[in-house]
Amino acid sequence: MDLIERANKEAVRRMLAGDPVLVDVIPAEQAIPTLGERMILHAGPPIDWARMCGPMRGAVTGVACFEGWTANLEAAAEQAAAGAFALHPNHHFDAVGPMTGITTRSQPVMVVENRAFGNRAYCTINEGLGKVMRFGGNDEEVLNRLRWLRDDFGPAMGAALREMGGIPLKSLVARGLTMGDEMHQRNVACSGLTLRHLAPALARVTQDRDALARALAFIGGNDQFFLNIAMALGKAIMDPVRGIEGSSVVTAMARNGTDFGIRVSGTGDTWFTAPVEMPEGLYFPGFSAADANPDMGDSTIVETIGLGGFAMGAAPAVAGFVGAGAASEAGNFTRTMAEITLGENPEWTIPALDYFGVPTGIDIRLVVETGLAPTINTGIAHKEPGIGQVGAGVVRAPLACFREALLAFAETLGVL
Amino acid sequence: MDLIERANKEAVRRMLAGDPVLVDVIPAEQAIPTLGERMILHAGPPIDWARMCGPMRGAVTGVACFEGWTANLEAAAEQAAAGAFALHPNHHFDAVGPMTGITTRSQPVMVVENRAFGNRAYCTINEGLGKVMRFGGNDEEVLNRLRWLRDDFGPAMGAALREMGGIPLKSLVARGLTMGDEMHQRNVACSGLTLRHLAPALARVTQDRDALARALAFIGGNDQFFLNIAMALGKAIMDPVRGIEGSSVVTAMARNGTDFGIRVSGTGDTWFTAPVEMPEGLYFPGFSAADANPDMGDSTIVETIGLGGFAMGAAPAVAGFVGAGAASEAGNFTRTMAEITLGENPEWTIPALDYFGVPTGIDIRLVVETGLAPTINTGIAHKEPGIGQVGAGVVRAPLACFREALLAFAETLGVL
Repeated sequence: MDLIERANKEAVRRMLAGDPVLVDVIPAEQAIPTLGERMILHAGPPIDWARMCGPMRGAVTGVACFEGWTANLEAAAEQAAAGAFALHPNHHFDAVGPMTGITTRSQPVMVVENRAFGNRAYCTINEGLGKVMRFGGNDEEVLNRLRWLRDDFGPAMGAALREMGGIPLKSLVARGLTMGDEMHQRNVACSGLTLRHLAPALARVTQDRDALARALAFIGGNDQFFLNIAMALGKAIMDPVRGIEGSSVVTAMARNGTDFGIRVSGTGDTWFTAPVEMPEGLYFPGFSAADANPDMGDSTIVETIGLGGFAMGAAPAVAGFVGAGAASEAGNFTRTMAEITLGENPEWTIPALDYFGVPTGIDIRLVVETGLAPTINTGIAHKEPGIGQVGAGVVRAPLACFREALLAFAETLGVL
Repeated sequence: MDLIERANKEAVRRMLAGDPVLVDVIPAEQAIPTLGERMILHAGPPIDWARMCGPMRGAVTGVACFEGWTANLEAAAEQAAAGAFALHPNHHFDAVGPMTGITTRSQPVMVVENRAFGNRAYCTINEGLGKVMRFGGNDEEVLNRLRWLRDDFGPAMGAALREMGGIPLKSLVARGLTMGDEMHQRNVACSGLTLRHLAPALARVTQDRDALARALAFIGGNDQFFLNIAMALGKAIMDPVRGIEGSSVVTAMARNGTDFGIRVSGTGDTWFTAPVEMPEGLYFPGFSAADANPDMGDSTIVETIGLGGFAMGAAPAVAGFVGAGAASEAGNFTRTMAEITLGENPEWTIPALDYFGVPTGIDIRLVVETGLAPTINTGIAHKEPGIGQVGAGVVRAPLACFREALLAFAETLGVL
């Protein structure tokens, strides 16, 4: 088993060596030249229209209207059912997206460059809270916000980032961990730190004062603004870890609202899937578990790098928000996740746990041996299209995909 | 003792009812019309030039140059020694100031209005880290920054606050406590939250884009920007608690670098003083305890309202910075301070302590009975003028002033 140990050591080395920098915002079709007409990227492993859940269908039909491919939502649904749109996972195009995770050609994407390895990863701009496309929203309010992001905010943010030479994210995340963020369901500190970096450059590159004020207010009014940056950062860190022969480290976890999928370094780009589970959480007033869609989104990339549910100990305030029990016991989640990971991240530490580093490098062998499934902090979407977020909670990755992956991994080593 | 219980209940009621809002930035002479020519307000209880410590002398001579009252530092020192400047505590003029705490007529002051009681409190704008007047700095770099604050930044911030109708501070502090701030030695979260509120309004009211970018960068680059706001907030909350007959609640703690002084509600505006203690802390590279000035500043007003050392449990990361031991044990400071206070603040709670409210209403009787002196998180200035900050640490309020206050308090009740 020396091969596996060496391979996993290399996998963790690459994770810790990652140097993600937020460098630009550009149209998705520019970032991903193969992203063409009537092509729609979604969260999670591959899925066709017939098996897509309600909110993802809502987002697909909404974005078809946004891109001008159809006249209305009904027509979009008909065309989708007829196979008029090419549906692919974000992960196949260097991208990630939260919840429904819809990415199409004219949307602006944030660009995170991993300067240690030269690769780039992309994620759309977080739309804010309320009715938004990532939770399946698709009405005019949702589409108008996407238009503003495309025409005004995205170009301004891109110009600011180019002017200032980008924002190094590794130290920013380190700071956020000392300020109560876990970067999945709590990004208030990192969003503020991003604003601190971005505001002076935005002021220098924006001509119109009202447009500038609106941009600053948009960032300042969205506690989850950083989530999408954290996701692109996660993807940028994990992509160089793919394809290490003999490594049992998880390189991606993602959900499309129907299936949960993982990829493992030593088995390349194969997805191992299992039905997604239902989050256990707290619901906004007027909603209950009966309204909830099962687990969804590429955002589990943050747990893959040791944040989110793995960094719960940094964020006692999030424990209440996601219904994870007593705030003072948030550290237990982090300690438990350390049992299925290969090491600690010495640069991302948690003060309240006396600077314990976040658990890094999920080993599928440890997951299967211990039966401890990765803990994920997640938002909860309404199961019907067009409604939006109804709560937040904790969900476990289904063990079945780790078992399946372990069998395939053993096969690559000639064990089976 | 019914009188004392009733009086203290009223004192705590007023503290918790306080509704501080940051409403404006205006020249000190406008905020405090009695603040005249050659008049210098300083931190702590009253003190004359002869007994002033090095850094406070440095700040006094620096500000005399800044105001144009003398040609240079030497002349300023001679004039100060000859009694040419009227020296008074900030606290006698509705004001507070960090460390040396120097306030003069042309400096801009931030205005915090306590909307529940109608009173206002003032504090200068935090100058940032490095060589600054509050730590006794007085060279051209220091004076130029003060000029920029007076001529550019202060007026812009004032205009922004008026345009937006002010920033409510009670909820902002509540949020900061969930983000690792204790608002004395750690204000990174609250500084960022303030920027989030202020940035759009600053953009709307500032004509020049470079000036705007510089203002945004100044706030965003100063982790202690909020400290002075927290201090004005503390003063605004505590002033209506003054003069309640029979109340043994501390209404102010302040140090001038030579004496530590407290005021107690039931004994009105009398200062009870004792020699200041030396902080125990950590020193910046190249400095040691031999360089340190004893404890100084009005910033202990934040401990008076339950923040700073009293809220250490909210800020495990600050424990290391001030040399207070293991981060995971930061909560012990908060629990200990609960032994000398009358209650918890239900709106300012600490997630990691399962939403324990910060200890509120220091009772001089409990301090004397338990022998537990209030814990203060503090910056440490070099003892010579003109040098600046050399470290940060924890210091105890001297018990002697509480004993003296208790005797005077007993006298007001006819007990002695």
